[in-house]
Amino acid sequence: MVTKIVSNPPDTSNLGEIQAEVVHITEPLELLSGQRLLDHVLCVETYGQLNKNKSNAVLICHALTGSHHAAGWHAGDKKPGWWDSIIGPGKSIDTEQFFVVSPSNIGTCHGSTGPLSINPKTNSAWGPNFPKLHISDWTASQRMLMDHYKIKCWAAVVGGSLGGMQAMHWSVAYPSRLLSAIVIASAMKLSAQNIAFNEIARRAIKEDPDFLKGYYHENKKKPLKGLALARMIGHVTYLSDLSMAEKFGRELRNGDFLDEKSESVEFKIESYLNYQGDKFAYEFDANSYILLTKMLDYFDLALEYNNEPSTAFELASCKFLVLTFSSDWRFPPERSREITKALITAGRDVTHAEISSSQGHDAFLLPNSRYQKIFSTFLQRIASNVNY
Amino acid sequence: MVTKIVSNPPDTSNLGEIQAEVVHITEPLELLSGQRLLDHVLCVETYGQLNKNKSNAVLICHALTGSHHAAGWHAGDKKPGWWDSIIGPGKSIDTEQFFVVSPSNIGTCHGSTGPLSINPKTNSAWGPNFPKLHISDWTASQRMLMDHYKIKCWAAVVGGSLGGMQAMHWSVAYPSRLLSAIVIASAMKLSAQNIAFNEIARRAIKEDPDFLKGYYHENKKKPLKGLALARMIGHVTYLSDLSMAEKFGRELRNGDFLDEKSESVEFKIESYLNYQGDKFAYEFDANSYILLTKMLDYFDLALEYNNEPSTAFELASCKFLVLTFSSDWRFPPERSREITKALITAGRDVTHAEISSSQGHDAFLLPNSRYQKIFSTFLQRIASNVNY
Repeated sequence: MVTKIVSNPPDTSNLGEIQAEVVHITEPLELLSGQRLLDHVLCVETYGQLNKNKSNAVLICHALTGSHHAAGWHAGDKKPGWWDSIIGPGKSIDTEQFFVVSPSNIGTCHGSTGPLSINPKTNSAWGPNFPKLHISDWTASQRMLMDHYKIKCWAAVVGGSLGGMQAMHWSVAYPSRLLSAIVIASAMKLSAQNIAFNEIARRAIKEDPDFLKGYYHENKKKPLKGLALARMIGHVTYLSDLSMAEKFGRELRNGDFLDEKSESVEFKIESYLNYQGDKFAYEFDANSYILLTKMLDYFDLALEYNNEPSTAFELASCKFLVLTFSSDWRFPPERSREITKALITAGRDVTHAEISSSQGHDAFLLPNSRYQKIFSTFLQRIASNVNY
Repeated sequence: MVTKIVSNPPDTSNLGEIQAEVVHITEPLELLSGQRLLDHVLCVETYGQLNKNKSNAVLICHALTGSHHAAGWHAGDKKPGWWDSIIGPGKSIDTEQFFVVSPSNIGTCHGSTGPLSINPKTNSAWGPNFPKLHISDWTASQRMLMDHYKIKCWAAVVGGSLGGMQAMHWSVAYPSRLLSAIVIASAMKLSAQNIAFNEIARRAIKEDPDFLKGYYHENKKKPLKGLALARMIGHVTYLSDLSMAEKFGRELRNGDFLDEKSESVEFKIESYLNYQGDKFAYEFDANSYILLTKMLDYFDLALEYNNEPSTAFELASCKFLVLTFSSDWRFPPERSREITKALITAGRDVTHAEISSSQGHDAFLLPNSRYQKIFSTFLQRIASNVNY
C-alpha cells in the first residue's frame, strides 16, 4: 500500500453527487429494552471503495440530529453532508484510502426504521410507541450492517458527541471488530446539566398542543412550535458564548429601544435562533427527538462495570483518538480527559488532543486545521496497519 | 458612632415578621420609551431604623424574579425573603446599623405598578400594553422613593445580576446621591448567549396557547406551561454544572432503563426542574417576565458613552464593591473584571473580589462565608463614613 501524506487538503476535493442506499437487515434485533425488531432498514451512504480484503472500512456514527448524509451532495441541495469538511478525497477521512459507511441509525427520521416507519403489528406508524433505544441497540444494528458488507473489522469507528458514545461502546462491545475508535467531543455519560437541557427540550415538545401525546402523525399535525423551541435550546448550548459574540454580538437586526413598537426590536441572535428553530421543526420528527435525547441521557459506559470506566475499557483492544474542543461547554474538555484517563488506567493506546477553538460543541462539525491534521495523521497511522 | 465588627453572624439573627407597605408616588414618571406613568405605586419592605440624619439607608435592587420581600418572614411562609442570608441584624447588610429599603420595581407582579395593574386610561389591566421599561426607569422610580423617605444620599445601592445593573446605573445617573454601589454577579451588558436564553424563554411563553398575545388575564387564562418552561431554562443557567452534579448527579428518581413503561424513568434533576417550573408559573406573571427579560437584554451601560464604559464611570463618584463567583457562567467573572477594569480606568475607588463557589449564578443568593465577610467589611467601611 501507499501511505499518502495529506498536508493541505485541497478545497476543491469533494465527493460530488451521492445517493443513499436502503439496506434491509433481516436478522432480528433484540433490543436492550427486551423488545425485538424482526427486521429493520438502514439508510446508508458510502464513500470510497471497499478494498479486496475489506479491511479499509470506516464507520461513521452520527450525533443527535445527524443522518446518513455525512458527505457529498444530494441533487438540488444547497449544502453538502454534515461532515463534508472531514470526509472526502484527500480529507481527514480520506475516501481515496478508506471505504466510509455512514448509516442513519434506527429511531431517527431520515428513512431508517424509526417512529415514522410502519409497525408491522399494527400496520400504522410506530409514533410514540417505537421501542426505547439504548446506544447498544445502535451498535448492534451497525454490527449487522457490517455483516451486510462482509466487513470483518472496521479500520475505524468514528463519531462526535452521541457518535463518540457509539465509538466507545463499539470498542468495549465488539473489541475484535475495530482497529481504532475516534471519540470526539463526547462523554462517558451526561452530566445533570446536560440531562436538564434535554428534559426542557422534551417538555417543550410534549406541551405543544399539536404533539397529541405523540400521535400527531395520524392526526395530520406536527408539533412545530415545540420542536423549534427544543432545537433553539439545543442550538444555544452547542455554541460558545464567544462564538455567539463573534457572530452576532449585540447587533440589532431591526428596531431601536426608543421605537414605540416594542415587538419590532430584535437582536440578530434572536432572529437567527428563531429561524434555526423553525427550519429544524419542519425537517425533524418530534418522537425521534424525544427518543434520541433519552438515548443520550441513559448512556453510561461504566454502569455495568461497577461505575469504573477503566474496567469497561479493559475489554477494548483498539487504538483510540480522543479529541475535544476548548470552548465546548456541553461536552467540555474535562469529560474527554476522563475518557483518556480511564483508557490509560486500562492500559490502552490513546492519543488525546484538546483543540483550541471558539466554536463550542459545534466545533467538531467545522473546519479547523489542527483538528483536521490530527485526525488525518491518526488515520494515516491506522491506514499503514491496514492489510490492503 | 460605633463600628460593630461582625465576624460570625449568629444563625439565629432574624428580622422576624415583616409587613410590606405600599408607597404611592404621585410625581409623574417619564419613561425612556417616551411614555409616562402619571403616578405609580411601589410595594416596599424596610428593615432597621432610619437614623436622624437619614444617612444610613441602603437600597436593595432586586433581580429578574425578585420582589420587595428580601428578608424576614411573612406570616405563614415556609421560607424567609430571598436575601435573608445577607440582610438582618448582624448580617452583611446589618439592620442594626442600616435602614434597608427594598422595593418591588415597576413592571413586576408583586403589587407594584405593572402589567397586572389597572391602566387608568382603559380601566382594565395593562397586560401586554404596559410600557416598555429600561433600567433607567427603575432607578428614576427608586429616586422618587428616596424622596418619599426624605433620604438625600444612600449609604449603599446594592444588587445582584439585574440588581447590579441598577446599582451601576445609579452610580452614573445620580452620582451625588450614593456613597457606594455594590455590584454582584452582574455585567455592563448581556452577551449574545444571554440574550439567546432570554429569547427562548420568551418564545416558550408566547407560544403557550393560553398566552393569547398577552391578553390571558381578561380571558381568565394563564400561560402556565410556557412560563414553567421559561423558568426551567432560566433555572438551569443559574446553576453550575458542578452544583447540579453535586445536588442531583445521575440519580434516578424512579424507574429503570429496562422498565418497559419508559415514561416512568426519570432522573432526579428532571423532577426537580419540572417542579420548580410549575411552582414559578403559578407565582409569576408572563407579561412581567417578558418585560423584565427585555430590560436585561437592552441594558448597555456604555451605549450612550460611545461604548466606552470608563467614560460612563467617570460620571460616578461613589465607592464600588464588585463581587463575582467562580462558577457563574451566566454572568461570568470576566464580565465583573470588565466592570472593575472600566472603574479603574475611570479612576474610581473599587474593591473587587472573585468568590470561589460551585453554585453558579445563584451563588449571590446563597450563604458563603467569604462572600458574606467581604460584603460586611465593605459596608462597615461605609458605615464609618456615615454621619449618624
